[in-house]
Amino acid sequence: MGASDPRRVEFWFDFGSTYSHLAMMRIAPAAAALGVAIDWRPFLLGPVFRALGWDGSPFLAQERKLDYVWRDAAREARKYGVPWRRPTAFPRRAVLPSRVALCGAQAPWVGAFCRRMMLLNFAEDRDIDDETVVLAALAESGVDADAILVQAQGEANKLALRRQTDEAMARGVFGAPTFFARGELFWGNDRLDDALALAAAA
Amino acid sequence: MGASDPRRVEFWFDFGSTYSHLAMMRIAPAAAALGVAIDWRPFLLGPVFRALGWDGSPFLAQERKLDYVWRDAAREARKYGVPWRRPTAFPRRAVLPSRVALCGAQAPWVGAFCRRMMLLNFAEDRDIDDETVVLAALAESGVDADAILVQAQGEANKLALRRQTDEAMARGVFGAPTFFARGELFWGNDRLDDALALAAAA
Repeated sequence: MGASDPRRVEFWFDFGSTYSHLAMMRIAPAAAALGVAIDWRPFLLGPVFRALGWDGSPFLAQERKLDYVWRDAAREARKYGVPWRRPTAFPRRAVLPSRVALCGAQAPWVGAFCRRMMLLNFAEDRDIDDETVVLAALAESGVDADAILVQAQGEANKLALRRQTDEAMARGVFGAPTFFARGELFWGNDRLDDALALAAAA
Repeated sequence: MGASDPRRVEFWFDFGSTYSHLAMMRIAPAAAALGVAIDWRPFLLGPVFRALGWDGSPFLAQERKLDYVWRDAAREARKYGVPWRRPTAFPRRAVLPSRVALCGAQAPWVGAFCRRMMLLNFAEDRDIDDETVVLAALAESGVDADAILVQAQGEANKLALRRQTDEAMARGVFGAPTFFARGELFWGNDRLDDALALAAAA
Protein backbone atom coordinates (compact mmCIF):
# COMPACT_ATOMS: atom_id res chain seq x y z
CA MET A 1 0.00 0.00 0.00
CA GLY A 2 1.15 3.53 -0.67
CA ALA A 3 0.04 6.90 -1.88
CA SER A 4 0.40 5.60 -5.43
CA ASP A 5 -2.00 2.69 -4.89
CA PRO A 6 -5.43 3.82 -6.08
CA ARG A 7 -7.29 1.03 -4.27
CA ARG A 8 -6.90 2.65 -0.88
CA VAL A 9 -8.96 4.85 1.37
CA GLU A 10 -7.68 7.37 3.89
CA PHE A 11 -9.56 7.07 7.16
CA TRP A 12 -9.32 10.23 9.27
CA PHE A 13 -10.71 9.70 12.75
CA ASP A 14 -10.71 11.09 16.27
CA PHE A 15 -11.03 8.74 19.24
CA GLY A 16 -13.52 11.10 20.89
CA SER A 17 -15.85 11.19 17.89
CA THR A 18 -19.09 9.22 18.11
CA TYR A 19 -19.42 8.53 14.40
CA SER A 20 -15.70 7.74 14.12
CA HIS A 21 -16.45 4.90 16.52
CA LEU A 22 -19.12 3.49 14.20
CA ALA A 23 -16.83 3.77 11.17
CA MET A 24 -13.89 2.28 13.06
CA MET A 25 -15.88 -0.82 13.97
CA ARG A 26 -17.03 -1.29 10.37
CA ILE A 27 -14.17 -0.27 8.10
CA ALA A 28 -11.73 -3.21 8.25
CA PRO A 29 -14.01 -6.01 7.02
CA ALA A 30 -15.79 -3.70 4.56
CA ALA A 31 -12.49 -2.56 3.02
CA ALA A 32 -11.08 -6.09 2.95
CA ALA A 33 -14.17 -7.37 1.14
CA LEU A 34 -13.51 -4.85 -1.64
CA GLY A 35 -9.73 -5.29 -1.73
CA VAL A 36 -9.22 -1.72 -0.52
CA ALA A 37 -6.28 -0.85 1.76
CA ILE A 38 -6.79 1.48 4.73
CA ASP A 39 -4.53 4.42 5.41
CA TRP A 40 -5.07 5.05 9.16
CA ARG A 41 -5.13 8.77 9.90
CA PRO A 42 -5.68 9.62 13.56
CA PHE A 43 -5.95 13.35 14.20
CA LEU A 44 -7.37 15.77 16.75
CA LEU A 45 -10.73 17.35 16.01
CA GLY A 46 -10.38 19.96 18.76
CA PRO A 47 -7.87 22.19 16.94
CA VAL A 48 -9.85 21.79 13.70
CA PHE A 49 -13.08 22.94 15.35
CA ARG A 50 -11.30 25.85 17.02
CA ALA A 51 -9.76 26.91 13.69
CA LEU A 52 -13.25 26.85 12.14
CA GLY A 53 -14.54 29.09 14.90
CA TRP A 54 -16.44 26.43 16.85
CA ASP A 55 -15.88 26.19 20.56
CA GLY A 56 -15.69 22.42 20.93
CA SER A 57 -17.87 19.91 19.11
CA PRO A 58 -20.60 21.50 16.98
CA PHE A 59 -22.93 18.93 18.56
CA LEU A 60 -22.45 20.61 21.92
CA ALA A 61 -23.57 23.99 20.56
CA GLN A 62 -27.14 22.82 20.23
CA GLU A 63 -28.71 20.81 23.03
CA ARG A 64 -31.49 19.69 20.73
CA LYS A 65 -29.08 18.40 18.12
CA LEU A 66 -26.88 16.71 20.71
CA ASP A 67 -29.90 14.89 22.17
CA TYR A 68 -30.67 13.66 18.69
CA VAL A 69 -27.10 12.54 18.07
CA TRP A 70 -27.21 10.25 21.10
CA ARG A 71 -30.45 8.68 19.95
CA ASP A 72 -29.15 8.36 16.40
CA ALA A 73 -25.84 6.86 17.51
CA ALA A 74 -27.62 4.22 19.58
CA ARG A 75 -29.89 3.31 16.66
CA GLU A 76 -27.01 3.24 14.19
CA ALA A 77 -24.91 1.07 16.50
CA ARG A 78 -27.81 -1.39 16.74
CA LYS A 79 -28.25 -1.33 12.97
CA TYR A 80 -24.59 -2.14 12.37
CA GLY A 81 -24.22 -4.51 15.32
CA VAL A 82 -21.62 -2.27 16.97
CA PRO A 83 -21.34 -2.27 20.79
CA TRP A 84 -22.45 1.04 22.20
CA ARG A 85 -22.99 2.83 25.50
CA ARG A 86 -23.24 6.61 25.74
CA PRO A 87 -20.01 7.87 27.37
CA THR A 88 -20.35 9.91 30.54
CA ALA A 89 -17.65 12.27 29.24
CA PHE A 90 -18.00 13.81 25.76
CA PRO A 91 -16.00 14.56 23.82
CA ARG A 92 -13.38 12.57 25.66
CA ARG A 93 -9.78 13.77 25.54
CA ALA A 94 -7.77 11.24 23.55
CA VAL A 95 -4.36 12.70 22.83
CA LEU A 96 -2.38 9.70 24.05
CA PRO A 97 -4.19 7.04 22.00
CA SER A 98 -3.98 9.33 18.97
CA ARG A 99 -0.21 9.53 19.39
CA VAL A 100 0.03 5.77 19.76
CA ALA A 101 -2.14 5.16 16.69
CA LEU A 102 -0.06 7.58 14.66
CA CYS A 103 3.09 5.81 15.82
CA GLY A 104 1.65 2.50 14.66
CA ALA A 105 -0.18 3.73 11.57
CA GLN A 106 1.85 1.42 9.33
CA ALA A 107 2.05 -1.43 11.87
CA PRO A 108 -0.09 -4.56 11.68
CA TRP A 109 -1.55 -3.91 15.15
CA VAL A 110 -2.99 -0.47 14.39
CA GLY A 111 -6.52 -1.63 13.51
CA ALA A 112 -6.94 -3.82 16.59
CA PHE A 113 -5.56 -1.10 18.86
CA CYS A 114 -7.87 1.57 17.41
CA ARG A 115 -10.94 -0.64 17.73
CA ARG A 116 -10.01 -1.43 21.33
CA MET A 117 -9.70 2.27 22.16
CA MET A 118 -13.07 3.04 20.56
CA LEU A 119 -14.76 0.24 22.49
CA LEU A 120 -13.18 1.45 25.73
CA ASN A 121 -14.62 4.92 25.10
CA PHE A 122 -17.95 4.15 23.47
CA ALA A 123 -18.92 0.81 25.00
CA GLU A 124 -17.06 0.59 28.32
CA ASP A 125 -17.05 4.29 29.23
CA ARG A 126 -13.38 4.35 30.21
CA ASP A 127 -10.91 7.26 30.28
CA ILE A 128 -8.90 6.46 27.15
CA ASP A 129 -6.35 9.20 27.72
CA ASP A 130 -5.07 7.27 30.75
CA GLU A 131 -1.63 5.72 30.34
CA THR A 132 -2.55 2.50 32.20
CA VAL A 133 -5.56 1.97 29.92
CA VAL A 134 -3.51 2.55 26.78
CA LEU A 135 -0.69 0.28 27.99
CA ALA A 136 -3.16 -2.52 28.71
CA ALA A 137 -4.70 -2.18 25.24
CA LEU A 138 -1.28 -2.31 23.62
CA ALA A 139 -0.33 -5.35 25.67
CA GLU A 140 -3.51 -7.08 24.45
CA SER A 141 -2.27 -6.49 20.91
CA GLY A 142 0.83 -8.51 21.80
CA VAL A 143 3.30 -5.72 21.15
CA ASP A 144 6.04 -4.14 23.29
CA ALA A 145 3.71 -1.68 24.97
CA ASP A 146 6.36 0.22 26.96
CA ALA A 147 8.60 0.78 23.94
CA ILE A 148 5.67 2.02 21.85
CA LEU A 149 4.53 4.38 24.60
CA VAL A 150 8.00 5.92 24.83
CA GLN A 151 8.06 6.45 21.09
CA ALA A 152 4.49 7.80 21.06
CA GLN A 153 5.33 10.36 23.73
CA GLY A 154 8.56 11.44 22.05
CA GLU A 155 8.87 14.95 20.66
CA ALA A 156 9.07 13.76 17.06
CA ASN A 157 5.77 11.89 17.31
CA LYS A 158 4.05 14.71 19.20
CA LEU A 159 5.05 17.03 16.38
CA ALA A 160 3.90 14.47 13.82
CA LEU A 161 0.40 14.44 15.35
CA ARG A 162 0.25 18.24 15.22
CA ARG A 163 1.31 18.07 11.57
CA GLN A 164 -1.28 15.40 10.86
CA THR A 165 -3.98 17.68 12.29
CA ASP A 166 -2.60 20.60 10.24
CA GLU A 167 -2.80 18.41 7.15
CA ALA A 168 -6.44 17.60 7.94
CA MET A 169 -7.23 21.30 8.01
CA ALA A 170 -5.22 22.03 4.87
CA ARG A 171 -7.15 19.35 3.00
CA GLY A 172 -10.60 20.63 3.94
CA VAL A 173 -11.49 18.27 6.79
CA PHE A 174 -14.16 19.79 9.07
CA GLY A 175 -15.35 16.75 11.03
CA ALA A 176 -14.79 13.07 11.67
CA PRO A 177 -14.80 10.49 10.39
CA THR A 178 -13.57 11.76 7.03
CA PHE A 179 -12.53 9.53 4.16
CA PHE A 180 -10.51 10.34 1.06
CA ALA A 181 -10.84 8.10 -1.98
CA ARG A 182 -9.28 9.06 -5.31
CA GLY A 183 -8.89 12.62 -4.07
CA GLU A 184 -12.54 12.99 -3.06
CA LEU A 185 -13.53 13.87 0.50
CA PHE A 186 -16.39 11.98 2.15
CA TRP A 187 -17.67 13.06 5.55
CA GLY A 188 -19.36 10.85 8.10
CA ASN A 189 -19.92 7.20 8.85
CA ASP A 190 -22.88 7.36 6.45
CA ARG A 191 -20.44 7.82 3.56
CA LEU A 192 -18.02 4.99 4.42
CA ASP A 193 -19.51 2.62 1.85
CA ASP A 194 -19.50 5.27 -0.89
CA ALA A 195 -15.84 6.06 -0.21
CA LEU A 196 -14.87 2.40 -0.27
CA ALA A 197 -16.85 1.81 -3.47
CA LEU A 198 -15.06 4.69 -5.17
CA ALA A 199 -11.67 3.39 -4.01
CA ALA A 200 -12.55 -0.12 -5.19
CA ALA A 201 -13.55 1.17 -8.63
CA ALA A 202 -10.03 2.54 -9.18
CA MET B 1 -54.21 6.86 6.57
CA GLY B 2 -54.48 8.65 9.87
CA ALA B 3 -52.61 9.40 13.05
CA SER B 4 -53.80 6.06 14.39
CA ASP B 5 -52.31 4.06 11.51
CA PRO B 6 -48.91 2.84 12.65
CA ARG B 7 -47.70 2.05 9.11
CA ARG B 8 -47.12 5.69 8.25
CA VAL B 9 -44.22 8.07 8.22
CA GLU B 10 -44.37 11.81 8.71
CA PHE B 11 -42.20 13.57 6.14
CA TRP B 12 -41.21 17.08 7.24
CA PHE B 13 -39.56 19.02 4.44
CA ASP B 14 -38.66 22.50 3.26
CA PHE B 15 -38.64 23.29 -0.47
CA GLY B 16 -35.37 25.20 -0.07
CA SER B 17 -33.54 22.29 1.58
CA THR B 18 -31.02 20.36 -0.50
CA TYR B 19 -31.43 17.06 1.28
CA SER B 20 -35.21 17.47 1.40
CA HIS B 21 -35.00 17.42 -2.41
CA LEU B 22 -33.21 14.07 -2.38
CA ALA B 23 -35.71 12.59 0.09
CA MET B 24 -38.67 14.01 -1.85
CA MET B 25 -37.56 12.33 -5.05
CA ARG B 26 -37.12 8.97 -3.27
CA ILE B 27 -39.84 8.68 -0.67
CA ALA B 28 -42.98 7.80 -2.66
CA PRO B 29 -41.81 4.57 -4.34
CA ALA B 30 -39.79 3.54 -1.25
CA ALA B 31 -42.79 3.98 1.05
CA ALA B 32 -45.17 2.29 -1.39
CA ALA B 33 -42.87 -0.73 -1.65
CA LEU B 34 -43.15 -1.19 2.12
CA GLY B 35 -46.85 -0.40 2.36
CA VAL B 36 -46.16 2.74 4.38
CA ALA B 37 -48.36 5.82 4.00
CA ILE B 38 -46.79 9.27 3.83
CA ASP B 39 -47.98 12.17 5.94
CA TRP B 40 -46.76 15.22 3.97
CA ARG B 41 -45.53 17.93 6.32
CA PRO B 42 -44.23 21.05 4.56
CA PHE B 43 -42.79 23.62 6.95
CA LEU B 44 -40.41 26.56 6.97
CA LEU B 45 -36.86 25.94 8.17
CA GLY B 46 -36.04 29.64 8.45
CA PRO B 47 -38.03 30.29 11.65
CA VAL B 48 -36.71 27.02 13.13
CA PHE B 49 -33.10 28.01 12.50
CA ARG B 50 -33.70 31.48 13.91
CA ALA B 51 -35.31 30.02 17.03
CA LEU B 52 -32.25 27.80 17.47
CA GLY B 53 -29.98 30.82 17.25
CA TRP B 54 -28.70 30.20 13.73
CA ASP B 55 -28.79 33.06 11.27
CA GLY B 56 -30.01 31.19 8.21
CA SER B 57 -28.92 27.72 7.13
CA PRO B 58 -26.17 26.24 9.32
CA PHE B 59 -24.50 25.25 6.03
CA LEU B 60 -23.97 28.91 5.24
CA ALA B 61 -22.12 29.52 8.50
CA GLN B 62 -19.14 27.53 7.32
CA GLU B 63 -17.86 28.03 3.80
CA ARG B 64 -15.87 24.82 4.03
CA LYS B 65 -18.90 22.78 5.04
CA LEU B 66 -21.10 24.42 2.42
CA ASP B 67 -18.57 23.59 -0.31
CA TYR B 68 -18.69 20.00 0.86
CA VAL B 69 -22.48 19.93 0.91
CA TRP B 70 -22.63 20.87 -2.77
CA ARG B 71 -20.18 18.13 -3.70
CA ASP B 72 -21.99 15.64 -1.50
CA ALA B 73 -25.42 16.57 -2.86
CA ALA B 74 -24.20 16.08 -6.44
CA ARG B 75 -22.73 12.66 -5.60
CA GLU B 76 -25.82 11.60 -3.68
CA ALA B 77 -28.12 12.69 -6.49
CA ARG B 78 -26.06 10.61 -8.93
CA LYS B 79 -26.15 7.65 -6.53
CA TYR B 80 -29.94 7.79 -6.26
CA GLY B 81 -30.60 8.75 -9.87
CA VAL B 82 -32.14 12.08 -8.87
CA PRO B 83 -31.88 15.06 -11.26
CA TRP B 84 -29.67 17.74 -9.80
CA ARG B 85 -28.17 21.12 -10.58
CA ARG B 86 -26.81 23.45 -7.92
CA PRO B 87 -29.26 26.34 -7.54
CA THR B 88 -27.89 29.84 -8.05
CA ALA B 89 -29.93 31.01 -5.04
CA PHE B 90 -29.65 29.16 -1.73
CA PRO B 91 -31.59 28.73 0.34
CA ARG B 92 -34.40 29.73 -1.97
CA ARG B 93 -37.47 31.38 -0.49
CA ALA B 94 -40.38 28.98 -0.86
CA VAL B 95 -43.30 30.27 1.20
CA LEU B 96 -45.88 30.04 -1.58
CA PRO B 97 -45.22 26.41 -2.56
CA SER B 98 -45.19 25.50 1.15
CA ARG B 99 -48.62 27.02 1.55
CA VAL B 100 -49.89 25.17 -1.51
CA ALA B 101 -48.44 21.87 -0.33
CA LEU B 102 -50.01 22.33 3.10
CA CYS B 103 -53.33 23.10 1.44
CA GLY B 104 -53.10 19.88 -0.53
CA ALA B 105 -51.42 17.72 2.12
CA GLN B 106 -54.35 15.27 2.07
CA ALA B 107 -55.00 15.58 -1.68
CA PRO B 108 -53.91 13.00 -4.25
CA TRP B 109 -51.86 15.60 -6.15
CA VAL B 110 -49.59 16.59 -3.26
CA GLY B 111 -46.70 14.24 -4.08
CA ALA B 112 -46.54 15.17 -7.75
CA PHE B 113 -46.74 18.88 -6.93
CA CYS B 114 -43.98 18.66 -4.32
CA ARG B 115 -41.66 16.73 -6.63
CA ARG B 116 -42.27 19.27 -9.39
CA MET B 117 -41.36 22.14 -7.02
CA MET B 118 -38.18 20.39 -5.92
CA LEU B 119 -37.12 19.74 -9.50
CA LEU B 120 -37.81 23.36 -10.42
CA ASN B 121 -35.53 24.50 -7.59
CA PHE B 122 -32.81 21.83 -7.61
CA ALA B 123 -32.67 20.77 -11.24
CA GLU B 124 -34.03 23.71 -13.26
CA ASP B 125 -32.84 26.55 -11.03
CA ARG B 126 -36.15 28.39 -11.08
CA ASP B 127 -37.63 30.84 -8.59
CA ILE B 128 -40.21 28.59 -6.91
CA ASP B 129 -41.75 31.37 -4.84
CA ASP B 130 -43.08 32.91 -8.06
CA GLU B 131 -46.85 32.73 -8.52
CA THR B 132 -46.66 31.98 -12.24
CA VAL B 133 -44.28 29.09 -11.63
CA VAL B 134 -46.50 27.63 -8.91
CA LEU B 135 -49.66 28.03 -11.00
CA ALA B 136 -48.03 26.25 -13.93
CA ALA B 137 -46.97 23.36 -11.69
CA LEU B 138 -50.48 23.05 -10.28
CA ALA B 139 -51.97 23.12 -13.78
CA GLU B 140 -49.64 20.25 -14.75
CA SER B 141 -51.15 18.27 -11.89
CA GLY B 142 -54.55 18.67 -13.55
CA VAL B 143 -56.16 20.55 -10.66
CA ASP B 144 -57.97 23.86 -10.45
CA ALA B 145 -54.82 25.90 -9.97
CA ASP B 146 -56.46 29.28 -9.41
CA ALA B 147 -58.84 27.98 -6.77
CA ILE B 148 -56.03 26.25 -4.89
CA LEU B 149 -53.88 29.37 -5.01
CA VAL B 150 -56.67 31.46 -3.50
CA GLN B 151 -57.13 28.92 -0.72
CA ALA B 152 -53.35 28.65 -0.16
CA GLN B 153 -53.03 32.42 0.20
CA GLY B 154 -55.99 32.72 2.53
CA GLU B 155 -55.46 33.79 6.13
CA ALA B 156 -56.50 30.42 7.54
CA ASN B 157 -53.90 28.56 5.51
CA LYS B 158 -51.16 31.13 6.22
CA LEU B 159 -51.84 30.62 9.90
CA ALA B 160 -51.86 26.85 9.42
CA LEU B 161 -48.33 26.98 7.94
CA ARG B 162 -47.09 29.04 10.89
CA ARG B 163 -48.67 26.48 13.22
CA GLN B 164 -47.08 23.62 11.28
CA THR B 165 -43.68 25.25 11.73
CA ASP B 166 -44.41 25.80 15.44
CA GLU B 167 -45.29 22.13 15.71
CA ALA B 168 -41.98 21.18 14.10
CA MET B 169 -40.14 23.17 16.76
CA ALA B 170 -42.27 21.79 19.58
CA ARG B 171 -41.49 18.25 18.46
CA GLY B 172 -37.72 18.70 18.34
CA VAL B 173 -37.17 19.24 14.61
CA PHE B 174 -33.88 21.09 13.96
CA GLY B 175 -33.34 20.47 10.24
CA ALA B 176 -34.86 18.96 7.12
CA PRO B 177 -35.79 16.49 5.97
CA THR B 178 -37.04 15.03 9.23
CA PHE B 179 -39.09 11.86 9.51
CA PHE B 180 -41.19 10.56 12.37
CA ALA B 181 -41.96 6.86 12.54
CA ARG B 182 -43.63 5.34 15.60
CA GLY B 183 -42.77 8.48 17.58
CA GLU B 184 -39.07 8.39 16.70
CA LEU B 185 -37.38 11.32 14.98
CA PHE B 186 -35.00 10.63 12.09
CA TRP B 187 -32.99 13.48 10.58
CA GLY B 188 -31.69 13.64 7.05
CA ASN B 189 -32.12 11.92 3.72
CA ASP B 190 -29.60 9.33 4.96
CA ARG B 191 -32.18 8.10 7.48
CA LEU B 192 -35.17 7.82 5.12
CA ASP B 193 -34.81 4.06 4.74
CA ASP B 194 -34.44 3.52 8.49
CA ALA B 195 -37.57 5.57 9.19
CA LEU B 196 -39.56 3.66 6.56
CA ALA B 197 -38.31 0.32 7.88
CA LEU B 198 -39.41 1.22 11.39
CA ALA B 199 -42.83 2.33 10.14
CA ALA B 200 -43.18 -0.85 8.10
CA ALA B 201 -42.34 -3.01 11.12
CA ALA B 202 -45.34 -1.62 13.00
